[in-house]
Amino acid sequence: MSRSRPIGIVVQKFGGTSVGDVTRMKSVADRVARTHRAGNRTVVVVSAMGGTTDELVDMAAKISPHPPGREMDMLLTAGERISMALLAMALYELGVPARSYTGSQAGIITDGEHGKAKILEITPMRVHEGLDEGDVVIVAGFQGVSAETKDVTTLGRGGSDTTAVALAAALGAEVCEIYTDVDGVYTADPRIVPDARRLERMSFDEALELTAQGAKVLQVRSVEMGRNHGIPIHVRSSFSYQPGTMVVPQEDIVEDAIISGVAHDTSEAKVTVQHVPDTPGVAAQLFSAIADANVSIDMIVQNVSEDGATDISFTMPSGEVHGLRGVLDDFVAAVGAKGVTVDEQVAKVSLVGAGMKTHPGVAAKMFQALSDRGINISMISTSTIRVSVVVAVADAEEAVRTVHAAFDLGEG
Amino acid sequence: MSRSRPIGIVVQKFGGTSVGDVTRMKSVADRVARTHRAGNRTVVVVSAMGGTTDELVDMAAKISPHPPGREMDMLLTAGERISMALLAMALYELGVPARSYTGSQAGIITDGEHGKAKILEITPMRVHEGLDEGDVVIVAGFQGVSAETKDVTTLGRGGSDTTAVALAAALGAEVCEIYTDVDGVYTADPRIVPDARRLERMSFDEALELTAQGAKVLQVRSVEMGRNHGIPIHVRSSFSYQPGTMVVPQEDIVEDAIISGVAHDTSEAKVTVQHVPDTPGVAAQLFSAIADANVSIDMIVQNVSEDGATDISFTMPSGEVHGLRGVLDDFVAAVGAKGVTVDEQVAKVSLVGAGMKTHPGVAAKMFQALSDRGINISMISTSTIRVSVVVAVADAEEAVRTVHAAFDLGEG
Repeated sequence: MSRSRPIGIVVQKFGGTSVGDVTRMKSVADRVARTHRAGNRTVVVVSAMGGTTDELVDMAAKISPHPPGREMDMLLTAGERISMALLAMALYELGVPARSYTGSQAGIITDGEHGKAKILEITPMRVHEGLDEGDVVIVAGFQGVSAETKDVTTLGRGGSDTTAVALAAALGAEVCEIYTDVDGVYTADPRIVPDARRLERMSFDEALELTAQGAKVLQVRSVEMGRNHGIPIHVRSSFSYQPGTMVVPQEDIVEDAIISGVAHDTSEAKVTVQHVPDTPGVAAQLFSAIADANVSIDMIVQNVSEDGATDISFTMPSGEVHGLRGVLDDFVAAVGAKGVTVDEQVAKVSLVGAGMKTHPGVAAKMFQALSDRGINISMISTSTIRVSVVVAVADAEEAVRTVHAAFDLGEG
Repeated sequence: MSRSRPIGIVVQKFGGTSVGDVTRMKSVADRVARTHRAGNRTVVVVSAMGGTTDELVDMAAKISPHPPGREMDMLLTAGERISMALLAMALYELGVPARSYTGSQAGIITDGEHGKAKILEITPMRVHEGLDEGDVVIVAGFQGVSAETKDVTTLGRGGSDTTAVALAAALGAEVCEIYTDVDGVYTADPRIVPDARRLERMSFDEALELTAQGAKVLQVRSVEMGRNHGIPIHVRSSFSYQPGTMVVPQEDIVEDAIISGVAHDTSEAKVTVQHVPDTPGVAAQLFSAIADANVSIDMIVQNVSEDGATDISFTMPSGEVHGLRGVLDDFVAAVGAKGVTVDEQVAKVSLVGAGMKTHPGVAAKMFQALSDRGINISMISTSTIRVSVVVAVADAEEAVRTVHAAFDLGEG
């Protein structure tokens, strides 16, 4: 009997921990070999072996405090080169033909922003060639080549996930599997909420909100890319063969759960500019200056004006507050505000669920649960499928558990 | 006053020891910066940092006993990528603009023989671009890209020297400087002959004979390439600013020294096939079989035939004798010879000098000196500018000192 199943392309991405040493590398090879033998056209995207990138960064730091971006990218891309060649060798040992390609060879064309390049286009001729000849094709994650100068670039944080999803889109893959050290997306961080439940399925929008609000398992850029191209992303563990969480287009979800999960993020600070004169355009002036400094801010709250002045609060990455100080002081001086306060002891707790847009009262129920627990809310922001609150960092874990319980998200 | 000196291209090559750690890397950068500031268009070829290649080879060995050549080359080329990016950063720190290029980016086109590729062509457009814009251009040694499949290749042993000289030829450089841990070519190994003298100048032919006969300071392939393209090679120390030894075309040498130096090599074995029937074509049959096994043999001695049979002796790399055993045994059986003996306790001592072709009696004087010292010669081979003898390995160092003294090669 001949096999009638159509042969689709599967893209599998393994991060630095998954290929962290020779033993793990062999176990990844074993998994890839099974995928190949099951009849799939298999493309593997790998990161540098865990620790390699840090070692290279350390060496560079010993030579130059501010190394040029072009050379930093040349340096760092050595990392994936090593891991992908070793993985190809491990596959050969299992009798599976494989060939590795750099980002440039795989046709990952980017802009010229070294260290945080964006993918402009993928021309995967050589990937197709390799697949057509029956090989497993291994592609270096995190890297590409600039369209204009043909220099080697890196995609920045989470770049290997981006490579994997972008490549899956360019190849028309059936699925992009992201292998990680947890077995999927949970209703909350299981270290904080012991009865947190693994989600079998969720929409891109939910994954995007959860990820943007602090869930670490996925990268925002890769989820966005999966959504834009309709490529299902399967988040799963590299340590087991159990299925993980499928992130799929909204239309593939038969019935929305009201709530998918609770995310939290302690990496942001709350900044308040005090007593800003309430004249037209003053907020625009503040946030333009912040944008010019290339700082992304998140939640913004402006109170109703009293006596012609108002406080404007917003959250932003704690690590960038120091660098923004001059911009804020200039603004205070220019408009005659009173001053700036910074509170780094805050946490953001977010409730995400595609179903909440048709279920009024979700926000109210969340605020009530926190209030019943004696947890004070200092900022609120909402989207159609998310409610976020800022609380004191000391209350963060209790807030996550409280909200998780209030919406019955746990097991059983 | 404007400078009237024409601006030429200088290629400088630094090996793994010269860029072995951050301190040495900075010292190399300092030297390159001086060359650049002196008004030269400067191209630097670097090897991987000392030890890196061994580490990568070890990792591969843990995964596969016989890794595929394509992937081994992908792996190993990570080494130069690291060293060249770090060197570019070190130059930036000194205020010297620099850019690094992989072999592929620098246009080093090779055949497809992974692990021992040959350079077919160099198309250094990007190198010229970099130089035209006033940058120091750093090129990864040892690596290229295959003409047919566009795969990354490595040039094998001594590959960075080959890259440097080939690039110097393609760029029409004034000189190719090979930086190493000794300060030039000596009349003999100074560890064996304390009064050995550094040669200021020698011809390509002499350098080639010395190198082929065991002098380690240069690589045969790069000297051949320098000779074929008329590129002067300056062998000098990376630890001092003193000039080393210039290797130049024969016509640039005003008067040949009779003797340039004494080389020795203990890495070969002497193989004797005993009592071979002396019929036409029998030697051709033996050496064809050896060539088919891809083994390079060196000296060959066939004694005058007695009673219709003769002994045939030759030297070859000791490490390859075991692999050739089957070929030799087959030959013995096929022609009815008596057997094969192998003597690994031998050394080859060679006297090299372009002047000896016009000075008869050099060989006789050498043999006499060895004989006076009681050193037995078991094989002899000569070229127009070289006399080589095989002696017992226990006599090797004494033989070098004896010949060195007999021809007054020492200092003072």
